[in-house]
Amino acid sequence: MDQGQANDYVVFIGAKAFMNYVTGVVMQFTTQKANEVVIKARGKFISRAVDVAEVVVKRFLDGTATVSNIKIDSEEFQNDEGKLFRVSTIEITLSKK
Amino acid sequence: MDQGQANDYVVFIGAKAFMNYVTGVVMQFTTQKANEVVIKARGKFISRAVDVAEVVVKRFLDGTATVSNIKIDSEEFQNDEGKLFRVSTIEITLSKK
Repeated sequence: MDQGQANDYVVFIGAKAFMNYVTGVVMQFTTQKANEVVIKARGKFISRAVDVAEVVVKRFLDGTATVSNIKIDSEEFQNDEGKLFRVSTIEITLSKK
Repeated sequence: MDQGQANDYVVFIGAKAFMNYVTGVVMQFTTQKANEVVIKARGKFISRAVDVAEVVVKRFLDGTATVSNIKIDSEEFQNDEGKLFRVSTIEITLSKK
């Protein structure tokens, strides 16, 4: 959604119920006929993004989708007192086999 | 450490102080002359493993090491009541440039 035309199938992982994200990803592949879905997360939600990817690939789309790419990165920013923070990010790309 | 001869430079991420892990990885490259270090984590420590990798690569070894590979996986196991659990894992490989 934040990548423009290049990639319309993105699921951002946050604090909602776990199965919401799993269902969201699975439906992009099934109902929306996506060939690729990117799971994105920041900070503490990174662990959850990996959980979602694993459950989708191993339990729901076993044999039909696979993890095709994983990127990690981080962003630095300053708070009001001038202190520097770094937040890590992950992007897990799932592709149809 | 659990990969035998193939890869002696592994750092497992757990609940110790964050900088312990960062220093651990950096020292494998500097003192131990490793060409490759694998950062491993399970479950909720996955986010932390990404943080460690990012801080090592961007702040401590900027320009000399890079993320060369990332693998995610999961293990299923049963508790005493027969309930199935899935735990995700990550392996982030850092390599000398």
